[in-house]
Amino acid sequence: MKRTFLLVVFSGMLSVYGQQRDYAIQAIPFTSVKLTDQFWQSRIETNRTATIPASFERCENTGRVKNFVMAAEKSGKFCTTFPFDDTDIYKTIEGASYSLAVHPDKKLDKYLDSLIVIISKAQEPDGYLYTARTIDPQHPHSWSGDERWVKEHDNSHELYNSGHMFEAAAAHFFATGKRNFLNIAVKNADLLTRTFGPGKRSVAPGHEIVEMGLVKLYRITGKKDYLELAKFFIDQRGKREYKKKSGNSWENGNYWQDARPITQENEALGHAVRAMYLYSAVADVAALTGDKEYLQAIDRIWNNMVGRKLYVQGGIGAVPDGEQFGADYELPNETAYNETCAAIGNVYWNQRMFQLHGDAKYIDVLEKSLYNGLISGVGLDGKSFFYTNAMQVKNTFHYPRLEAERSGWFECSCCPTNVARLIPSVPGYVYAQSEDGVYVNLFINGSANLVVNKKPVQLIQQNNYPWEGGLLFTVKPKSTADFKLRIRIPGWARNEAVPSDLYSFQGSQLASVVLKVNGEVTSYSLEKGYAVINRKWKDNDKVEVSLPMEVRMVKASEKVKDDQGKVAIQRGPLIYCAEWKDNDGRTSNIILPEETVFKPVFQKDLLNGVTVLKGEALGVNVSADGKSIHTVNKPVTVIPYYAWANRGKGEMTVWFPARVKEVDLLTK
Amino acid sequence: MKRTFLLVVFSGMLSVYGQQRDYAIQAIPFTSVKLTDQFWQSRIETNRTATIPASFERCENTGRVKNFVMAAEKSGKFCTTFPFDDTDIYKTIEGASYSLAVHPDKKLDKYLDSLIVIISKAQEPDGYLYTARTIDPQHPHSWSGDERWVKEHDNSHELYNSGHMFEAAAAHFFATGKRNFLNIAVKNADLLTRTFGPGKRSVAPGHEIVEMGLVKLYRITGKKDYLELAKFFIDQRGKREYKKKSGNSWENGNYWQDARPITQENEALGHAVRAMYLYSAVADVAALTGDKEYLQAIDRIWNNMVGRKLYVQGGIGAVPDGEQFGADYELPNETAYNETCAAIGNVYWNQRMFQLHGDAKYIDVLEKSLYNGLISGVGLDGKSFFYTNAMQVKNTFHYPRLEAERSGWFECSCCPTNVARLIPSVPGYVYAQSEDGVYVNLFINGSANLVVNKKPVQLIQQNNYPWEGGLLFTVKPKSTADFKLRIRIPGWARNEAVPSDLYSFQGSQLASVVLKVNGEVTSYSLEKGYAVINRKWKDNDKVEVSLPMEVRMVKASEKVKDDQGKVAIQRGPLIYCAEWKDNDGRTSNIILPEETVFKPVFQKDLLNGVTVLKGEALGVNVSADGKSIHTVNKPVTVIPYYAWANRGKGEMTVWFPARVKEVDLLTK
Repeated sequence: MKRTFLLVVFSGMLSVYGQQRDYAIQAIPFTSVKLTDQFWQSRIETNRTATIPASFERCENTGRVKNFVMAAEKSGKFCTTFPFDDTDIYKTIEGASYSLAVHPDKKLDKYLDSLIVIISKAQEPDGYLYTARTIDPQHPHSWSGDERWVKEHDNSHELYNSGHMFEAAAAHFFATGKRNFLNIAVKNADLLTRTFGPGKRSVAPGHEIVEMGLVKLYRITGKKDYLELAKFFIDQRGKREYKKKSGNSWENGNYWQDARPITQENEALGHAVRAMYLYSAVADVAALTGDKEYLQAIDRIWNNMVGRKLYVQGGIGAVPDGEQFGADYELPNETAYNETCAAIGNVYWNQRMFQLHGDAKYIDVLEKSLYNGLISGVGLDGKSFFYTNAMQVKNTFHYPRLEAERSGWFECSCCPTNVARLIPSVPGYVYAQSEDGVYVNLFINGSANLVVNKKPVQLIQQNNYPWEGGLLFTVKPKSTADFKLRIRIPGWARNEAVPSDLYSFQGSQLASVVLKVNGEVTSYSLEKGYAVINRKWKDNDKVEVSLPMEVRMVKASEKVKDDQGKVAIQRGPLIYCAEWKDNDGRTSNIILPEETVFKPVFQKDLLNGVTVLKGEALGVNVSADGKSIHTVNKPVTVIPYYAWANRGKGEMTVWFPARVKEVDLLTK
Repeated sequence: MKRTFLLVVFSGMLSVYGQQRDYAIQAIPFTSVKLTDQFWQSRIETNRTATIPASFERCENTGRVKNFVMAAEKSGKFCTTFPFDDTDIYKTIEGASYSLAVHPDKKLDKYLDSLIVIISKAQEPDGYLYTARTIDPQHPHSWSGDERWVKEHDNSHELYNSGHMFEAAAAHFFATGKRNFLNIAVKNADLLTRTFGPGKRSVAPGHEIVEMGLVKLYRITGKKDYLELAKFFIDQRGKREYKKKSGNSWENGNYWQDARPITQENEALGHAVRAMYLYSAVADVAALTGDKEYLQAIDRIWNNMVGRKLYVQGGIGAVPDGEQFGADYELPNETAYNETCAAIGNVYWNQRMFQLHGDAKYIDVLEKSLYNGLISGVGLDGKSFFYTNAMQVKNTFHYPRLEAERSGWFECSCCPTNVARLIPSVPGYVYAQSEDGVYVNLFINGSANLVVNKKPVQLIQQNNYPWEGGLLFTVKPKSTADFKLRIRIPGWARNEAVPSDLYSFQGSQLASVVLKVNGEVTSYSLEKGYAVINRKWKDNDKVEVSLPMEVRMVKASEKVKDDQGKVAIQRGPLIYCAEWKDNDGRTSNIILPEETVFKPVFQKDLLNGVTVLKGEALGVNVSADGKSIHTVNKPVTVIPYYAWANRGKGEMTVWFPARVKEVDLLTK
């Protein structure tokens, strides 16, 4: 299994240096990276043992699998809520495939094959695969339309289902070398190329992802039609008539990123998950075609998003109604939506932006999302999930569409299965490679087997990240090798809270980053956020990097109305929050002067082991009779944001008032 | 002029006792009531000297008069915003007519005649009068539709304009005895009876009032067609197709009281002003036809409104979007809409409900609205107005459609001109008469000339209401007269905050009402809220009533979420509020324990003379550095709600937290 995979990877790598245009920088695939990391390995293991089995179980119990069985038999009645419920199976297969690749499991392998048989039987002879219609074509699901594709822009999600299937089939093929799922995907993709394109049917897919999926199939099969269709779909956007002046994003087309062609877009707009998948596909197609207008567009959009629409914990999509981006600087805390899927999409997109530009700022954003607002989407048990990720929970929290507690599953259960596929793919984000060397993007213990200038090189990382800033890299080339090792020096270690002026650190500068090569302090050039070490590497060369881990107070731009006069707390890549459990049951009564001193304390038995921060701040107490209110010194303990809501329901605060101007008296 | 008028009134009165069915109780017309009252006479004088001239001036300056001139010339372009801007002239003429009737003014009389000439010239030969179309019938105002009436249900307001014109023409005729305006109205009404009705055109008028106006014309002319058309219009409601299940009141028809026939309605729903005018017309038609289903419907609706949708200051229409009634118990303070016109409509409707039922509870609601949330709609200067009437203003108040300050005029200026016509008509709400006697509804100094059982009787009131509870009535029959004198004992004087369980008084019972006849304490029977004194009245008989004027704490039903844990303050009929000016610049920081003792102090130089209430409550102070918060004793002064916002912009509170559970820390 492994051998087949490596051949595929190598052939993929070859294309980088061949005539075929692609990303100048390629990620080292997750299968070449072996983790020994406490922080991530435990999450991947929980994903394998809890999340994936729970997802499959829920796909079975809720009727998602049954829909495929009924489609094969062409009888019955679509028995779940949404036509895109098919994708929960695809996404869990995708996650399971990643898992299989690094953790062989015959039983799981067989189970996937059995699901793939069920899927293949649900596919119509011409390749169409969409159970909501196939079960009873005369009476398809109400969202699906009377004929194929006619409601694709609106609600049907036919191409969305295809896209997730392509992603899953590609992962399954990479992981297992088997073509059983891939063949289904190719058959469906061939139907799409026969159906859509110039002179054929046109549509701007209602929920993007088919574009990314087609690119993946193109990379595997080399069929140019797939790439061209991905580009065709992207180029269909902005062609519908909308009410341009409407402020309603469904009326003006922004909801679907359809108000104007992508090449004329300047802002991150509309449904955040849709947006992330579109921008990722635009990056893919730009890399593969060299389209400069595409590149400029996503550069502009990224600047808008990171400059004006990114939560401090890396979340995006502030607005519940439509799961959308808000206006510039619209980042409310009490009503933050922050869909877990959008955080995952944000990782996809930033990885691609990095591969296009080789700049660490994209990984800074990726890391912020990954370590904070993304993994907050799954509980430490691996089987409870946030669809939305709150920024503030008060005792008065009461927002019907927002969550203060995780759930096991959702009627629209995109997020749990998206988590199931993202977590095991994390090793694939650690390293990357360009013609002249290696990039270290994430600080995760383990070893990676690379081929640099045709020479095998092993790279070993040892650290206690994200809790400590000391990083040790051991380079083990098979023979002396000349290449650049680029180690990301995170923005937060260089006094930059984000690669924009949206957030900034308060107070004195951090200690400097110190870099040693084989024990000696070495100066280094910082290029695009990377410490570049260019040398002839020999076996067991050691690089040490020490990142400063002071606790920092973060302030938001004054333009963010909801964070005015407030501070957030960061240490290393982690954003912290106060949760009720550690703070006498209350966090909304905390006043946190900027000068508050926090002391980090690692607590191995708390929340699977976390460094908490302890400080002395101020609290506001209301007397039992409700007639006396006064400020008291209040010891405050904050925990990593990602770890909140694992100990029951209660108050949680990310942004603390640093000083108070008024109080609102609450009687309820 | 006076003689003509009295003849008209007498002929109107005769119909009560004749064969013609009508209200069993008739109001003593405002022209038979001569005020000497400090509280109201000053308002009517301000209305005469400031409000009416300012309204006319604004009608001239904004182009409202010009629209009529252009319509007469059939040239130009409708030059204001709304087709119903015509009605501002009608309504101001109505107010001016009331004023003329009691305060002869040749100049004003001549000015009205000159306006009536302009209006008459704008009327089309067949009676149609609607400047937005007549100016340029080929290019009417965009709201008006390509042909007459086709957009009546939506936006055109053609019948709304007619309705206000009828009301104004009727008032002008009553006040002056002249037929110049009445003739225009009759000509227009005749067009309506030719156009609408069974077998002719049907419509549920888009904004009700034509129904009330037609009834007024029917009373004057005796033309049954007008009454029948009023009923026809009422019965057209509930015939359109709407999306019944939609929660949007435009989609389900509730906005226009059009979701179902009035006879099937149980709730006060939709646009509050429209609703009041409809229910008033239903009462009129029920009185004139004896329709029991109509009666039962408005009884049900009244119970719903007074039981669940009435603000403590008598305002109605809680929801800004659509100026509508909210759901049951939806009475938010921070975002209260409370249109001034709706309070005026509430007076119209409750007067009619009283005339139907002879129950004081309707006057209790009328008084609550009149003395609080209605006259708050006009500043003490008589030329600044609230369109919306806030229930709470904090420093953070920022609601684009709501107001913390009065304005001189509005683009949609219905409220100022509605005030202009309501204020001078107040004397008409003081007394009423049935076959067996006289009702005293409002406590306003002055004298009234009645005819009871064909004998002239003068009734004199002397009091210092609403500041003091002592009422003196002197009865002066021309010769000994046998009749029942019914003096309303307000619900608030009988420990009933409203005639429903929506609000209640806290704490110990009030002192009892004491009634004396010719100096001797007399027991009396309380019937439908009235102290009934049945005797042979002789000249100079005196009745004294002493109403208890303790300060009361009001609590809302627990179902009113926004008032939970809060108290409001009432003394006599007046609801009080705290305004920034009297309370160290802040009122949102006040905690008002229920046991707080308030002392009434009359301040003659404050706000044209008001009794303020002074007490010692609690305030929450935030230190200058924003790090210390504490409760202090805070002297609190509250003023009558109607008088707020006459001394600059700042905080105002009606409902005070009686005890606090939590605080919300505000950094802005």
